[in-house]
Amino acid sequence: MTESDPRRAVKALVFDVFGTVVDWRTSVAREMRAVVDAKGWKADPYALADRWRELYQPSMDPIRRGEKPYARLDDLHRESLKTLLAEFGLEPLPADELEHLNRAWHRLDPWPDCVPGLTRLKRKFILATMSNGNVALMVNMAKHAGLPWDTILGSEPAQNFKPVPSVYLTGADWLGLEPAEVMMVAAHNGDLAAARAVGFRTAFVARPTEYGDKQSRDFKAEDAWDQVVDGMDELADRLGC
Amino acid sequence: MTESDPRRAVKALVFDVFGTVVDWRTSVAREMRAVVDAKGWKADPYALADRWRELYQPSMDPIRRGEKPYARLDDLHRESLKTLLAEFGLEPLPADELEHLNRAWHRLDPWPDCVPGLTRLKRKFILATMSNGNVALMVNMAKHAGLPWDTILGSEPAQNFKPVPSVYLTGADWLGLEPAEVMMVAAHNGDLAAARAVGFRTAFVARPTEYGDKQSRDFKAEDAWDQVVDGMDELADRLGC
Repeated sequence: MTESDPRRAVKALVFDVFGTVVDWRTSVAREMRAVVDAKGWKADPYALADRWRELYQPSMDPIRRGEKPYARLDDLHRESLKTLLAEFGLEPLPADELEHLNRAWHRLDPWPDCVPGLTRLKRKFILATMSNGNVALMVNMAKHAGLPWDTILGSEPAQNFKPVPSVYLTGADWLGLEPAEVMMVAAHNGDLAAARAVGFRTAFVARPTEYGDKQSRDFKAEDAWDQVVDGMDELADRLGC
Repeated sequence: MTESDPRRAVKALVFDVFGTVVDWRTSVAREMRAVVDAKGWKADPYALADRWRELYQPSMDPIRRGEKPYARLDDLHRESLKTLLAEFGLEPLPADELEHLNRAWHRLDPWPDCVPGLTRLKRKFILATMSNGNVALMVNMAKHAGLPWDTILGSEPAQNFKPVPSVYLTGADWLGLEPAEVMMVAAHNGDLAAARAVGFRTAFVARPTEYGDKQSRDFKAEDAWDQVVDGMDELADRLGC
C-alpha cells in the first residue's frame, strides 16, 4: 500500500444496521407471526412487518425538520405499532405484550456474513453503529445477535436522525476522527450520499432481498462508492483484514 | 436464586476505568520514561505520572460547578501536561510529541484479572464504561487493552463529569434501564457513594496499589457495598458468570 492509497486513512467503520447488518423483515415477521397465531388474528405477518417499517421514515421526519423534540426510535416504533394495529383492525395489545412486541427490534437476526465479517474487520478498525436506533436497542440487539461493536454511535449522541449531517459528524467527532478517517457502510445509496456529503468514505453492501419481493430500490450501487461489496466478508477481504 | 435475590435485577455493569480496570500509573510512567530518556531530562517518571494525575480532579471542577462548558478529558489532560512540564522546569514539547504523550492515556494496560473477568461477565451482563474519559480515549484504550465493552457511556453523553449525578443517570437512561438495574463497579468509595445515591447497585474492587507507595485511601470498602471483591474474576464468581 502506498501513501496515496485512500485505505491508509480509514480508522473507523460505522454501520447502518437495519437492512445492512440485520434482516429486520424476516425477524419482525417471525415475531409478528407468534402474536398473530396466539391471538388468532387474520393478518399476514409480513404485511404487518412491512407496514411497520413503512411508518418508520415518516415518524422521524418532524424531528429532522425541528418541529418536534428528539424521541428515541423505541418510542417512535411503539406509536407506529399502535397505528398499524388500528389500521389492520386488530385489537389493542395489553401494555406488557405491546412492549414485548415493540422490542422485536431488539431481537433482530444478522445476515449470515455479518458476525464472521465484522469479527475480521474489528481486528483492524474501530467498529461502531451509525444507526437511527437508540443505544438500548443497539446494545440489546448486539447481545442477541453477537455483533462485536466497539461502541454505539448514531442518533442518540446527536439527538437527531440520519440523514441529518450532525448525526454523522457527531459520530466522527466523538471518535476523535476527521470525517475522511471514517467509512460509512450501508445497503442504502441515500445513506451513503449523505455520509459522503460530510466527507466520510463509503462502502455499499448489497442487500437485494431486504424487502423480500417488495424491494423497489437499492438493488445495486448507484454512485461510485469507495467500496461496493456483497457482504461483510468481502468487505474484510477488500480492506485487507 | 430466589425472587428476592437482588442479583436478579441487575442487567448492566458499568465500570470506572482509571484505576479500576487499568493500571494508569505504571502505564503512564512507562511512557514518561521513554520521553525522559529520549530528552535526557532529569526527572522521575513516576513523579511526573503522579503529578499529572494530581491535576486531574481540579481540571474537571470548574465544569462540574457549571463555571466552564464541557471539555473532553483529552483536552484537560493536554493542559495539565503543559502545566506539569513547566512545573518540573522541562522544555515544552513540539505539538506532535505533546500529542503522542497526551495519548498515553489511550494506551493504558489493564490489571491482569480484567480481560478474563470482563469476558466472563459479558456473557451475562451488558458491560459499559462509566468513566470521565471521553469516547475516543475509551475506544482506543479498549482496542489497545482488549477490553470487551458493549458500549461507551460516562462523561461525553452527559457532557459532565462524575460524581455529578447526571453522568450516572444519563448512562442508565441510554441503556433503557432503571438505576437499580445497573451496578457501578469501582475501586473508589466516593464513586460508589455517588452511584448509590442515584439508585445504582455497587461493587467495590480493591486496587490497593493503584497509587503505588503513594496510595493514601481506598485500600478497602468503606461502606456496605453490594459486592466487595479483589478483582473482576472474583466479581464474575459472585455474580454467577
